[in-house]
Amino acid sequence: MKIELSQPFFKERIAIMGIGLIGGSLALALKQNQSVGKIIAYDRNEEALERALALGVADEVYNDPIKAAENADIIVLATPITAMGAIVREIMPHLKPDAVLTDVGSTKGSVIDSIRAELGYLPERFVPAHPIAGTEKHGVENAFATLFEKRRTLVIPHLENSHDAVRTVHEMWVAAGSETEEMGVKHHDQVLAATSHIPHLLAYATVDTLANLDDRAEIFRFAAGGFRDFTRISASDPELWSDICLQNRESILEVLVAYQKKIDMLRHALEDEDREVLRTIFARAKHARDNFYKEPQ
Amino acid sequence: MKIELSQPFFKERIAIMGIGLIGGSLALALKQNQSVGKIIAYDRNEEALERALALGVADEVYNDPIKAAENADIIVLATPITAMGAIVREIMPHLKPDAVLTDVGSTKGSVIDSIRAELGYLPERFVPAHPIAGTEKHGVENAFATLFEKRRTLVIPHLENSHDAVRTVHEMWVAAGSETEEMGVKHHDQVLAATSHIPHLLAYATVDTLANLDDRAEIFRFAAGGFRDFTRISASDPELWSDICLQNRESILEVLVAYQKKIDMLRHALEDEDREVLRTIFARAKHARDNFYKEPQ
Repeated sequence: MKIELSQPFFKERIAIMGIGLIGGSLALALKQNQSVGKIIAYDRNEEALERALALGVADEVYNDPIKAAENADIIVLATPITAMGAIVREIMPHLKPDAVLTDVGSTKGSVIDSIRAELGYLPERFVPAHPIAGTEKHGVENAFATLFEKRRTLVIPHLENSHDAVRTVHEMWVAAGSETEEMGVKHHDQVLAATSHIPHLLAYATVDTLANLDDRAEIFRFAAGGFRDFTRISASDPELWSDICLQNRESILEVLVAYQKKIDMLRHALEDEDREVLRTIFARAKHARDNFYKEPQ
Repeated sequence: MKIELSQPFFKERIAIMGIGLIGGSLALALKQNQSVGKIIAYDRNEEALERALALGVADEVYNDPIKAAENADIIVLATPITAMGAIVREIMPHLKPDAVLTDVGSTKGSVIDSIRAELGYLPERFVPAHPIAGTEKHGVENAFATLFEKRRTLVIPHLENSHDAVRTVHEMWVAAGSETEEMGVKHHDQVLAATSHIPHLLAYATVDTLANLDDRAEIFRFAAGGFRDFTRISASDPELWSDICLQNRESILEVLVAYQKKIDMLRHALEDEDREVLRTIFARAKHARDNFYKEPQ
């Protein structure tokens, strides 16, 4: 679904629950595009709130989730995914009747399950979403207004959703510079396992393996640009990524098994000096990647 | 060993055997810095020679290695590593007595072994070297003069080397914009297995695994910037990398076994929902990488 805004998107008060890289960048994007009156930030970390105020990311800040959410037109859950269920339970009775609730979690099945578990039902005005954007940095101090430009946000409606709530979430992300697209929960979690969660796991595994070698000091000194790119995502927040990997572990495990078989195949090819197996796998991979990244990099 | 040029480096004729990304970039760097009179290019591929002439990378081109090498002051082997031994056997009787022979191969043990096997000895004026630089592209058309700037070239002297030949190779690379450093053969091959060869193997394995999934079309469509960086090296030349992996297979296999154990550990942590194991590995990896890449990226 390619949404274009027929009229400018504007909401008086948008609450960002958890003001880090993603929440902060969303706030900046909406402000830059004049799509919001005030950004209200909740965070349990007081320093993050002070920085959000000082950086002009938020206009009001609260360390009480109810105060942040109660008068908001949209409430965006941008905390670690494991905290979302409890926050929803706490704020739900205090929301305006027409308020729209959404989230930015990297896993969708687990966020939906945790909210259903906390409330006993899935609110018709809760629309799960996931902006496919980020950097290896974290924290509101690394937020920037153009993070979502030329990126896709996946909107994951559920059966009970009201149509206008879904529409509002699409529009907010388009107003923030993103394209939007809808996808089912299970499919989202599989695609993200393959494109994001497994690569993070592998990058962490690579760097940790090398960091345990005897000549680790030289290993990094003599690494070329390819290594730097390959391992960039291993600089991502370990707490955040432990949660993401656990919350999407079933989809990750499915792909991880296939990946381990491929590594075994490559190892046996090296042991047997079987050049043809190496060349075939390498060529197929290059072909797949070249095909999908035709634009200049 | 940090070499600074006490006087400008200049050689009348430098022959590049194999005019691709690395050989072509070396030619351009030496020309730009007025360190060479003429670049002579040999390649078995006539089109590459024509392009090298047309792009001003080379001044004379030959598809006969002897003609290219016979009057050169320095001969740089920049063909695929598997071709180097045979070329040296062919050109060796025709070199000027004071000519310096060097190479740019990504593996050093196998290049040295193949030359010793072809000649029955290791020439005192053959100085193995390896510029730690490159991109995922290949071919002389992608060569550029600044490829080696802020990069290191590893010089791997052997026991029979004459001191002035080693010095000449250092100086040539410094003249091309690189820093140089000396390292032992075995150590070089281990460090490169860890920082370059294994990451390539893993990136190829990742992309090939994903390209075999049912929803491969969406997998790439919804990949964020992190995935693009992580998989960039899988766009590298499959022929070149099959050779490199085979030629350094012993060092690669050593590290690959450790890597497979780490992946197993992560898989079991996911299966057992053991957050602490994930967090510990992720945090240690992030710490290692952050430590070694303190400068802005």
